[in-house]
Amino acid sequence: MESAIAEHLKCPRTRHRRIEDDYVPPYPAWSARAAGAVSQVVMGYFGVQSRGAAMQGRACAALAGIARSFGLTDGPGHHDLTHFVDADGFDNMIAIAYWNDPAPFARWCATPEVDDWWQSDQRLDEDLGYFREIVSPRVAHYETLFNTPDRFEGVGVVMGGASGDIQEHAYWGSMRDRIPLSQTDAMVPSGVRAIVAQTAQAGRRVRVAGHEHLAMIRSGQEWADTRGQERTLYVDEMEPVLREGMEFLRDQGLGIGCYSNRYMRHLDAAGAPLEKSFGLSFWRSLADLERWAESHPTHVAIFGGFMRYVQALNFQLQLRVYHEVSVLKTDEQSYEYVNCHPRTGLLNGLA
Amino acid sequence: MESAIAEHLKCPRTRHRRIEDDYVPPYPAWSARAAGAVSQVVMGYFGVQSRGAAMQGRACAALAGIARSFGLTDGPGHHDLTHFVDADGFDNMIAIAYWNDPAPFARWCATPEVDDWWQSDQRLDEDLGYFREIVSPRVAHYETLFNTPDRFEGVGVVMGGASGDIQEHAYWGSMRDRIPLSQTDAMVPSGVRAIVAQTAQAGRRVRVAGHEHLAMIRSGQEWADTRGQERTLYVDEMEPVLREGMEFLRDQGLGIGCYSNRYMRHLDAAGAPLEKSFGLSFWRSLADLERWAESHPTHVAIFGGFMRYVQALNFQLQLRVYHEVSVLKTDEQSYEYVNCHPRTGLLNGLA
Repeated sequence: MESAIAEHLKCPRTRHRRIEDDYVPPYPAWSARAAGAVSQVVMGYFGVQSRGAAMQGRACAALAGIARSFGLTDGPGHHDLTHFVDADGFDNMIAIAYWNDPAPFARWCATPEVDDWWQSDQRLDEDLGYFREIVSPRVAHYETLFNTPDRFEGVGVVMGGASGDIQEHAYWGSMRDRIPLSQTDAMVPSGVRAIVAQTAQAGRRVRVAGHEHLAMIRSGQEWADTRGQERTLYVDEMEPVLREGMEFLRDQGLGIGCYSNRYMRHLDAAGAPLEKSFGLSFWRSLADLERWAESHPTHVAIFGGFMRYVQALNFQLQLRVYHEVSVLKTDEQSYEYVNCHPRTGLLNGLA
Repeated sequence: MESAIAEHLKCPRTRHRRIEDDYVPPYPAWSARAAGAVSQVVMGYFGVQSRGAAMQGRACAALAGIARSFGLTDGPGHHDLTHFVDADGFDNMIAIAYWNDPAPFARWCATPEVDDWWQSDQRLDEDLGYFREIVSPRVAHYETLFNTPDRFEGVGVVMGGASGDIQEHAYWGSMRDRIPLSQTDAMVPSGVRAIVAQTAQAGRRVRVAGHEHLAMIRSGQEWADTRGQERTLYVDEMEPVLREGMEFLRDQGLGIGCYSNRYMRHLDAAGAPLEKSFGLSFWRSLADLERWAESHPTHVAIFGGFMRYVQALNFQLQLRVYHEVSVLKTDEQSYEYVNCHPRTGLLNGLA
């Protein structure tokens, strides 16, 4: 067993972990490990927003175009295609792409084929919305967690390595304890979100500035390999509670520090839903995320249900679960919305 | 809103709380406050153990005798009469008494009427067991929590005052954050329990030495005032889960650091059960208690259920809940068992 914090990211502590040194978690879990050369990653959320069945074909084509552009030089090491319907009834498809270095990402972004498309005024005249939510945490500013040491998801795919089983998990507060920055920093937020620039066409091309220590979580599950009792447990008992929690955050999150929540489903390359989903949310602070996770009845039920679930199955799970959590510096965030409705992503509550 | 840690017990911190300074709990709670003159309290558990219906009369008479002795000079400021049936099928009645000063307790104990009875060899020949579990935490070594600011229970009754509504509650880790010692001490346990002295009659009069930072919790609820939906919620939904958790600790607690657990019911002076109960447990460490509370499905369900419950009732609860938690120095513990079976209290797992 080893710490979730990689050796080369350890430093003299000014803040303690929540656990004692002799703590042994009740079941194993793993973190992704960045090779020493990896100092900063990029998580890019490239969205296409549409409304109504008539627009779905055009939206899908736009998403396919984005996915194709990932194949250009300096494209991402991994991407997912995902979908959800938001509270305003819009379809939102997001291609989520990961780079293990900001330099190729910047070059990819500057590729004329990519940049011209993004900057074109045509993007305002297609009855579609587009957005880019780009976060680029340094390796000390995020953590990952997986219940299996293989088949990583998300940023874990591009980090290149895996830990042994880790000590800091299966207790409240372990998320914070896994983030290297927590060794010396309470990660208190400062500043506020703000709309920082608009084009002449007011509101149609909008940038949002994040703030120091804004937190973000992608937390997912894949039930494709579950069978029998385990499948029933997930589909009939856990998923409805998870959905209730996700809808609470979507509809009432602003009051508790959740700027945006999307409960998304993975799509295959042809646009068909896979048996994989995740919640994606942005928060004022890691503390706000902690408070919700630890006190909202739905999430407490999810956690308690999972604990019961893994014990009932004697820790032989086919359900795959993972998450990635970042606490972002101001310079690690870039949010831009083109022709999107005012409750989209980080715009939510600002417009 | 104020800190659960009384002003005069605050000190420069070397360890942080789990919450940010701007944390606001979702519902109010209160702590008992000791007057400045109170520096150490005594929590005395005076038990009578019997087996079978035929012995109940004699056991009740013995308990009544103990309760009568509380009326002597220097007796406790408050006491409860309580009962449970342990895993070995023994009835255990405990008179739980509280003093707000160790000096009168010591004098009361030394009263010939009290001491002669306790020391008498007759205690070995009545087909009853007796025990005294006396813990005397200094005020920096324990905390209390109540969901109403009136009608305190337990040690709160003798402390003489109440806080305003407190900040450190309704999150995991708040128990630790309410204990003044946590400002500077991780409260790591050291040493082991041990049987330290026996009389010539081996095993029949036994003392157990505790160890540094042994933790103890009394956590209770009164449902006497609940009606309708709230009563159904407690009786049919929460209590069975609570009972499951209590039975797990009773039967399998040793493996996770729980030395002893009793799920007890209050009795009135005539021996009839009241609609009040509590769990009483001793732990190797506060961390072990935290880990169980936060990860065992039953307790997570209790916490999640309570969160849902208070929200469903719009925080207008008739259910009264409270707890008191101590982290004890070696010199704050005294455990003595006379004629008790080997799994009684702190003897559990030692004999």
